[in-house]
Amino acid sequence: MNNNLSSLKVRDIGEQGLLERLQRFCPPDIIGDDAAVLATKAEESLVVTTDMLVDGVHFSDITTSAEDAGWRAAAANLSDLAAMGAFPLGITIGLGLPGDVAVSWVERLYQGMTECLQKYNVPIVGGDIVRSPITTLAITAFGQANPDFIIRRSTAQVGDAIIVTGIHGASRAGLELLLNPQISQNLKTEAKTALITAHQRPKPRLDVIPILWEIVESQSKIQNPKSKIAGMDSSDGLADAVLQICRASRVGAILEASKIPLPSAFNHWLTPERSLNYALYGGEDFELVLCLPPQAALTLVQKLGAEASIIGTITPGSRVILQHENKKIPDQVLSLSQGFQHFG
Amino acid sequence: MNNNLSSLKVRDIGEQGLLERLQRFCPPDIIGDDAAVLATKAEESLVVTTDMLVDGVHFSDITTSAEDAGWRAAAANLSDLAAMGAFPLGITIGLGLPGDVAVSWVERLYQGMTECLQKYNVPIVGGDIVRSPITTLAITAFGQANPDFIIRRSTAQVGDAIIVTGIHGASRAGLELLLNPQISQNLKTEAKTALITAHQRPKPRLDVIPILWEIVESQSKIQNPKSKIAGMDSSDGLADAVLQICRASRVGAILEASKIPLPSAFNHWLTPERSLNYALYGGEDFELVLCLPPQAALTLVQKLGAEASIIGTITPGSRVILQHENKKIPDQVLSLSQGFQHFG
Repeated sequence: MNNNLSSLKVRDIGEQGLLERLQRFCPPDIIGDDAAVLATKAEESLVVTTDMLVDGVHFSDITTSAEDAGWRAAAANLSDLAAMGAFPLGITIGLGLPGDVAVSWVERLYQGMTECLQKYNVPIVGGDIVRSPITTLAITAFGQANPDFIIRRSTAQVGDAIIVTGIHGASRAGLELLLNPQISQNLKTEAKTALITAHQRPKPRLDVIPILWEIVESQSKIQNPKSKIAGMDSSDGLADAVLQICRASRVGAILEASKIPLPSAFNHWLTPERSLNYALYGGEDFELVLCLPPQAALTLVQKLGAEASIIGTITPGSRVILQHENKKIPDQVLSLSQGFQHFG
Repeated sequence: MNNNLSSLKVRDIGEQGLLERLQRFCPPDIIGDDAAVLATKAEESLVVTTDMLVDGVHFSDITTSAEDAGWRAAAANLSDLAAMGAFPLGITIGLGLPGDVAVSWVERLYQGMTECLQKYNVPIVGGDIVRSPITTLAITAFGQANPDFIIRRSTAQVGDAIIVTGIHGASRAGLELLLNPQISQNLKTEAKTALITAHQRPKPRLDVIPILWEIVESQSKIQNPKSKIAGMDSSDGLADAVLQICRASRVGAILEASKIPLPSAFNHWLTPERSLNYALYGGEDFELVLCLPPQAALTLVQKLGAEASIIGTITPGSRVILQHENKKIPDQVLSLSQGFQHFG
């Protein structure tokens, strides 16, 4: 933790002093009781997700400022809500801090979180600050969704089109640029900045949800009204998302490598292999991976334009196969074990 | 962390392996998506509370087994919901673990949590497990409450009776007995066990809430229907609770020392000064401190019997005064600074 910017440490003002400083990031009517109270919409289900982030494991001063760590933590949780088709109601923040962390670092963390949260009108509704040998951030986000419109991993059906929002691989490329600035020599400043921003300030795709429901509502009049949208976010990588959906839905998939939307800067900068590797396994793009009946998928792509692409199809069986336009490249079978285990 | 009991470490089975083992503690329909989905009652507000617990700061193998650490963590969060007048819907658990923690320790932690949660039919609805240099537990609990029946700190009124549930000081005495077993020499085994159990297995007072609402509903027919119950739990000590309520409500209070219910074992074991100190400042009794109009308070005490006691009155001004039966002992003015700061 880089504390040089400020001489005031957490231990100088104590838990209570820090809480008082951080209250300006929270709505005033929510503070001061044992728990926060929030109005909910009748007929809607509560959707809850939680994440834990540890200094040196999930964020690091080398690649992530306090503001960016805050933004990313908030964005990851809002993305989980978007992945369920839910609109956020609020988040709670648990913070473990060593006494020698600069108060300014904590304030910048909250600044970054609220910058992200305010874009989506999400209040910080509660929290806990405790002493810990390692800076730790525990976020729980909760939202509401129409029970008929909840997106799950387990409801993909054979014949569904697989759609991704946005582009994939940008966040990983941004991380590489932060870790190894020298690799940017063939990149325009603009492209470099865009990739780094994709890593530091990912956007949860809550914007897609209302458009999606509009399509589902109009399509369900003519199609099977019981069919549910399957999906999840691509926070652990695009390959992981497709594999998780297929496993939960007991189906397979064919992905077309050439259809996976990549950052245009990859073209003359990375080999096709590396580009695809970043897109499939890079992770942290926080886009949505959705499985829809083909007609609904086409309508969604028309509505979202460049912001959505059909990259494959749900198939019988259980294998997820990556096909290449160049038929000399053999098909690849993707597997979850190509991912990584955090305790490894 | 005492890992001698089992040779299997968290790093041996990884995040995924550990998640799979812990899923037996969660309802099966809730697992497997980006977030959990919960049904809510219409017309009720959502109540949310969060706690963070760090090994060596908030729990320790010296005084707390894994099961007890789990029970206490769950109980503390359910107590926060009870303190708001809310019924629990579910909890999420974030867990940070060093790789060398025994898998059996984690399972025993979850065992203790679920033992407490099952008493109140509360499901674990989500979680996150991450690598961390220090064992860290982040719990967020959700509940629902009738918006007209929410208990807040800020609504105490002059003339209200101050009620406490249960007894105070037992948890602190139990902790002292665990830290210094030799002080138990004048205590019967039964009494000793009861005090240690009070510390290791505190009970959130969710049982009081329905009784309270019954009284409020019947009383509101004849009294001011707009009057709200003020209160909080005594997790940070009885003195802290009364002081917090008075500060939030901009009132004062008179407490009668002789009315504060103590464990009967204190009589011949501790000095009156130490007994009162444990009761006022010991903390972690997880009882409720409530401010009610005198008639409602009497009715509550009649209904709860020995489980509730009127210990004082809300007064004008801002001072919280402790009066003693023995008039030779001068009145004391209590203050928040007699508590402690975690970063101190």
